[in-house]
Amino acid sequence: MLKPPDHQVAGHQALDGNLGPLIDGSGRFYKPLQSDERGLEEVLFYTSFASNPTVPNHIRLFFPAFHGTVTLPASNGSGPHPHLVLDDLVHGLSHPSLIDLKIGSRTWYPTSSDNYFKKCLNKDRETSSLPLGFRISGLRVYKGEGFGFWKPDKNTVKGCVTAGDVESVLRRFVSSSADSSTDCAFASVVYGGADGILARLLELKAWFEDQTEYHFCSCSVLMGFEREAAEKGREGRVMVRLVDFAHVLDGGGVIDHNFLGGLCSLIKFLKRILTDAGANVGKDPPFPENGRLE
Amino acid sequence: MLKPPDHQVAGHQALDGNLGPLIDGSGRFYKPLQSDERGLEEVLFYTSFASNPTVPNHIRLFFPAFHGTVTLPASNGSGPHPHLVLDDLVHGLSHPSLIDLKIGSRTWYPTSSDNYFKKCLNKDRETSSLPLGFRISGLRVYKGEGFGFWKPDKNTVKGCVTAGDVESVLRRFVSSSADSSTDCAFASVVYGGADGILARLLELKAWFEDQTEYHFCSCSVLMGFEREAAEKGREGRVMVRLVDFAHVLDGGGVIDHNFLGGLCSLIKFLKRILTDAGANVGKDPPFPENGRLE
Repeated sequence: MLKPPDHQVAGHQALDGNLGPLIDGSGRFYKPLQSDERGLEEVLFYTSFASNPTVPNHIRLFFPAFHGTVTLPASNGSGPHPHLVLDDLVHGLSHPSLIDLKIGSRTWYPTSSDNYFKKCLNKDRETSSLPLGFRISGLRVYKGEGFGFWKPDKNTVKGCVTAGDVESVLRRFVSSSADSSTDCAFASVVYGGADGILARLLELKAWFEDQTEYHFCSCSVLMGFEREAAEKGREGRVMVRLVDFAHVLDGGGVIDHNFLGGLCSLIKFLKRILTDAGANVGKDPPFPENGRLE
Repeated sequence: MLKPPDHQVAGHQALDGNLGPLIDGSGRFYKPLQSDERGLEEVLFYTSFASNPTVPNHIRLFFPAFHGTVTLPASNGSGPHPHLVLDDLVHGLSHPSLIDLKIGSRTWYPTSSDNYFKKCLNKDRETSSLPLGFRISGLRVYKGEGFGFWKPDKNTVKGCVTAGDVESVLRRFVSSSADSSTDCAFASVVYGGADGILARLLELKAWFEDQTEYHFCSCSVLMGFEREAAEKGREGRVMVRLVDFAHVLDGGGVIDHNFLGGLCSLIKFLKRILTDAGANVGKDPPFPENGRLE
């Protein structure tokens, strides 16, 4: 039985008769193809990426596994609609805390239509994208048993424009209290550690310094963890994934400096939070010149 | 006796009665203050930077030494004009090959006036700034005794828009032939090596990943070497400096993701040229979390 996902934090949602993604409860996530060229672009990206031998295996793990497309009844009752079949990234997690960060100070690109360019440019200037190099698209944070989730509404998220606003959310994301105070109690096990979010982002950064095949425009980093594991001090129970590939361009021999700059900015925020929390901040991993670690 | 510098590659030039920089032939470079707020901004930057204790010494070496301001007769005969007093970066070099690269895919900034924003945005879109994250502002390459300099005119430089165009110039910059063929004969001693340009840029990159005080908008990396030294296979006779600080903004706790992205893009170009030339490509140096190496 297909149903809207419980844990979606950004993007179009299958609520109130809207077209949105569905899950099957067994580990598959069905994302409706956007009706304009974006839907096709995303299918093309997943298809070509899946068969690209130059992508290192440890980098492939940052991308949702792709299982083709399927036509399903749309969530809005409009009839059959093509869907991407992807892994449900939070399948099996009971109370995942999740945050979706759209990376890059610029969400438009050289070949954007004039309308799209203006729309994106305005949004980049109104949000933290321009000053910070990334913006929060959505989040939900589990506040512990009996307290439910902190899920700020769209306007609150859009209002996170300054470095202080965004840092405050990134602190609260790993804090234990049910209110808005930020003790960063889970920072060291979620952001820090050999398998923590920072370590994963540094792996991703090393790849972005090297790869010149793809420019990931308007793409997000989705980060998550389970509070229950973090409370037990278990490192490594974190998730870092890239999502949303409707605007992936051919890199043309140039690194994705827009994504990389924003990613480095996010990394600096996490390093500062970890340093303030007294945690050990890892070094960048070495990255071989041929782009492969295996 | 003050005179216009022989080796200027970009910016306003003191030729044909224009206002431009002067040198004294003894190691000082006099840059006329721009008449609008840019002149004042540049003085303020140099003054505050000179006394900022958080800037590591090895990073300070990337900046021209600042010796205050002085009022001198302007190069265009318009009378007394305030000038920045800086080190003449190429003093003592006989035939420096120089290239000025304006770093960042975006030369405007959040608080730009509407006119300035539009002017910069158009230029970023017309040049390689947007696709590559940097653009060539000017260059002169010594072709060897009896052959003089290759100094493409402004329109030729502006026409370097694609990755291929720019890579071709970066190859020719370190090639030995007097014509346009690119043997990259000097790549390993100029771009490569422990004290080569790539190693210096990687030092700079490590600082930009960490520092959140300054955003260097419309700032250039000036790279240079002497062909005579390169012909003898001498590494380390290279120069890498940042120049032009009329648009340096308070970083506000955020890294300069725009500059860093462009710098990483330039680094990737140099790594590829070195790899193609069969040279050893250095690893990123470690960078301590407190931002100081001394």
